[in-house]
Amino acid sequence: MEKRLLLPLCLCWALSAGGAERSGLPNLLILLMDDMGWGDLGVFGEPSKETPNLDQMASEGMLFPNFYTANPLCSPSRAALLTGRLPIRNGFYTTNAHARNAYTPQEIVGGIPDSELLLPELLKKAGYVSKIIGKWHLGHRPQFHPLKHGFDEWFGSPNCHFGPYDNKATPNIPVYRDREMIGRYYEDFKIDLKTGEANLTQIYLQEALDFISRQQSSQQPFFLYWAIDATHAPVYASKHFLGTSQRGLYGDAVREIDDSIGKILKSLQNLSISENTFVFFTSDNGAALISAPKQGGSNGRFLCGKQTTFEGGMREPAIAWWPGQIPAGHVSHQMGNVMDLFTTSLSLAGLQPPSDRHIDGIDLSPAILQGKLIDRPIFYYRGNEMMAVRLGLYKAHYWTWSNSWEQFSQEKYFLIDPWSLKRSCESTGSTVCSGVAEPVLDSPGRHRARFSAAGIDFCPGQNISGVTTHTQEEHTKLPLLFHLGKDPGEKYPISFSSSEYQEVMEQIFPQVQLHKKTMVPGEPQLNMCDKAVMNWAPPGCEKLGKCLEPPKSNPKKCFWPH
Amino acid sequence: MEKRLLLPLCLCWALSAGGAERSGLPNLLILLMDDMGWGDLGVFGEPSKETPNLDQMASEGMLFPNFYTANPLCSPSRAALLTGRLPIRNGFYTTNAHARNAYTPQEIVGGIPDSELLLPELLKKAGYVSKIIGKWHLGHRPQFHPLKHGFDEWFGSPNCHFGPYDNKATPNIPVYRDREMIGRYYEDFKIDLKTGEANLTQIYLQEALDFISRQQSSQQPFFLYWAIDATHAPVYASKHFLGTSQRGLYGDAVREIDDSIGKILKSLQNLSISENTFVFFTSDNGAALISAPKQGGSNGRFLCGKQTTFEGGMREPAIAWWPGQIPAGHVSHQMGNVMDLFTTSLSLAGLQPPSDRHIDGIDLSPAILQGKLIDRPIFYYRGNEMMAVRLGLYKAHYWTWSNSWEQFSQEKYFLIDPWSLKRSCESTGSTVCSGVAEPVLDSPGRHRARFSAAGIDFCPGQNISGVTTHTQEEHTKLPLLFHLGKDPGEKYPISFSSSEYQEVMEQIFPQVQLHKKTMVPGEPQLNMCDKAVMNWAPPGCEKLGKCLEPPKSNPKKCFWPH
Repeated sequence: MEKRLLLPLCLCWALSAGGAERSGLPNLLILLMDDMGWGDLGVFGEPSKETPNLDQMASEGMLFPNFYTANPLCSPSRAALLTGRLPIRNGFYTTNAHARNAYTPQEIVGGIPDSELLLPELLKKAGYVSKIIGKWHLGHRPQFHPLKHGFDEWFGSPNCHFGPYDNKATPNIPVYRDREMIGRYYEDFKIDLKTGEANLTQIYLQEALDFISRQQSSQQPFFLYWAIDATHAPVYASKHFLGTSQRGLYGDAVREIDDSIGKILKSLQNLSISENTFVFFTSDNGAALISAPKQGGSNGRFLCGKQTTFEGGMREPAIAWWPGQIPAGHVSHQMGNVMDLFTTSLSLAGLQPPSDRHIDGIDLSPAILQGKLIDRPIFYYRGNEMMAVRLGLYKAHYWTWSNSWEQFSQEKYFLIDPWSLKRSCESTGSTVCSGVAEPVLDSPGRHRARFSAAGIDFCPGQNISGVTTHTQEEHTKLPLLFHLGKDPGEKYPISFSSSEYQEVMEQIFPQVQLHKKTMVPGEPQLNMCDKAVMNWAPPGCEKLGKCLEPPKSNPKKCFWPH
Repeated sequence: MEKRLLLPLCLCWALSAGGAERSGLPNLLILLMDDMGWGDLGVFGEPSKETPNLDQMASEGMLFPNFYTANPLCSPSRAALLTGRLPIRNGFYTTNAHARNAYTPQEIVGGIPDSELLLPELLKKAGYVSKIIGKWHLGHRPQFHPLKHGFDEWFGSPNCHFGPYDNKATPNIPVYRDREMIGRYYEDFKIDLKTGEANLTQIYLQEALDFISRQQSSQQPFFLYWAIDATHAPVYASKHFLGTSQRGLYGDAVREIDDSIGKILKSLQNLSISENTFVFFTSDNGAALISAPKQGGSNGRFLCGKQTTFEGGMREPAIAWWPGQIPAGHVSHQMGNVMDLFTTSLSLAGLQPPSDRHIDGIDLSPAILQGKLIDRPIFYYRGNEMMAVRLGLYKAHYWTWSNSWEQFSQEKYFLIDPWSLKRSCESTGSTVCSGVAEPVLDSPGRHRARFSAAGIDFCPGQNISGVTTHTQEEHTKLPLLFHLGKDPGEKYPISFSSSEYQEVMEQIFPQVQLHKKTMVPGEPQLNMCDKAVMNWAPPGCEKLGKCLEPPKSNPKKCFWPH
């Protein structure tokens, strides 16, 4: 509670030194990356050091090496960011099977419930104008769209940029401006899967620069949510950046994003609003190692990647930037979470979070503006299960699972059920289905490598016996404990018989007990799938002559293999 | 050859902007770490970000993310640094078995041959005064000592700080000032293995500050080789730093070193000689993962560690610093090697490397002072075998080996031959023998982890099928090829049948052929062991009453398990 008390003071301080804006309220700019890993930035140790703008952003702002997502998959992570609540509370999970990651493919029936209060809805009360640029992922059916949930503007798509599809079995993904579609990926917005060329990041950059400039003129505070997706497979970059990275196409995409962020920050400075704009850079989940190295990033020294609750799946690169407000070149050991961006943004806007529901995000402004450290646990969920918890430097795994033997060892993709394949590929970000994957069947002498390369492996090259398991392993009575300071890679479980284990678990057990006891799960939104709800005839399709005929409705439980 | 032509120009530029020194020649300061890994610095992505002084050194100087050692073990690496030559040329290798790492334990008969020309010997011609502080490791018998090979001063020890020993079966390691011992570790220079407390880094720091200050007064150019060892197991830190790191004792040692380096650089500035002093920071080999996490560091995202020719064994943190000469905040993609410090130092001193022998080190001054990129291969040796080669962003493994099944799977150390155990432990940096290792026999349900934890594992938690092998695997006909830009962790071998493989190997094969064809191995110095040659009665022991009686000579071939 004492944390809340700090707020008015800190806010006054922030605002007094602040703005040219009429309202006195800071603009809010969240730069959310897609499948970018902790280790993809120079400042986080990427050996090629190809992110000069992000590294400079860190040197002018505050770096958070202990920042997490709320879920190792995109849709739930994004729903958590915008609601300040764990996916198990806001409904972005499934109960179809135990501890399964779920998201919002085109077949999904559900989406963000009306009962949830999203950040832009709340910011309206303080006069903010909100725009989302890029991937929404909180439901593609019209009732779930951004403009139904508080955003004033939208440029982007409701789903991932998978494709191209034939518009018969599956429609191509629409791209929206505000309430109506203006085209489809691969038709009107080109992505060349062979070369990796697409100019989408340039379009998203221009949208951001235009919005910022318009808002500066109108002198209304803004919330811009820049949720771009060039680092999500199929990875892309525009012509100018293709072939420029030492890291291949993935690196080209990172370089273009880095360059774009440099331009956005520069524009804030040129418009003289940088001292009145709070900027936060992070990612939705860990790098998709299944797509690496061609189409996936790096989680640095952390274990495994996207889809898992190991550090590689959930620890994110994070930088806060606000010249004049945030001291330059600082590193904060504050544990943070994407859900905190909800509460912190409200706090900076002088608003209180809703009091009628549990909010998991905390107000980070004392950490960001005054260098304080706030004690708090991090909960690592996979679907409906709390897999792990971090308290201080310790992390306790209550459940471990990488992925199933069935998925891990599938030798050739055409041997498995195509529906399950498509789901697997899309949700993992694998490129097997996009048609750009290289055959991996020609490495003589390394049969096991060949097999697992063709299967789904969330932990390539990593194997911690008893930890990176292919069966779901329960450890609720005797959790696997790691010291993330000494052992960030989760390689050395602390001995159960040590006094260290006993002392730490005595602190962790009651916190977990309290968390579970008071947890009221929301209604799961990601259980049902139906090909009839796909993007056949999105709003605006008539004007473009791009409406397609949906098949007959046949709702069934979605299959979530991970 | 065109590289050499650049030298006079660049040197003139360097010197014209340079010094207050009478000679006009820059001082040379090499800060060589012991078993510190690429990933141990904040600037290289250590998540705790606890090296503010080294990170600042990088921001004021030039960072080299592609810097290598010449060998994944301490003695050969140090011999290579000081001679500019691969260990297979300067004799720091063994032919007792194929591809085995060897070093200079107390039993070693050999040492640096008189025929080798060391950097301080050559610098004398230009009037340099040279001092080594810390670990020598090029032979402990008197004829091999630093002052016999060009150094003017020495404070430190000839061997690692293992112990304590009983002075019966094994003598404690002596500490020297110049030509004579002044005490022994654990007797006169305390290291508390229980708490990890030792004030050695403070002593080494004071020695450095005193030497620098004296040289500044005398206005003679100096070469200081600061070869400290707090990060080599048994790891230590002084009281002030104990318990201050998020990373445990290893981190405490790193923090103390970071603090000390900050003080050394500050003293250069205070003495107004920073603009006339070339400083280079690096490490002798990769982090000893066998000792991690308590007594070993981190190789970041690189594969395996010390003792191996994977990136984790041989890629080193590296920073060049020379205010006014080296542009601040630059990153160089130049591939460098510790051997280059020999040639580069000579070049900065206006000297030519010896022309009567093959020198492997290149002059990096065009890269450091003018931002040029010089094409050159990196050869990865283990003992008498070229295991791998890097050319551009590609690395080809001609041989792979982590360590033997016998060593890897030994369940309990007392089951194996104690002589072989001692050698294993010392050379790996394992703490099993130092008496501070925790029992690892109490992790129910993780039998395999338990076994390998008790054995020797150079790649804990990492397993690349067909790459991290426990038998020596030959690939000379069809090398395993990796793209280190896309795949720094050596996880994804490039398909043999790809055109990329063909094109790259067409460039690599001739370079390797030429290298092998022109290689003239030196006489191996690390073949013979004899307990009679241990540090029983080092020079100066009489004055201290610390002479011990050597056993009867019984020379035999050393056993090198790795």
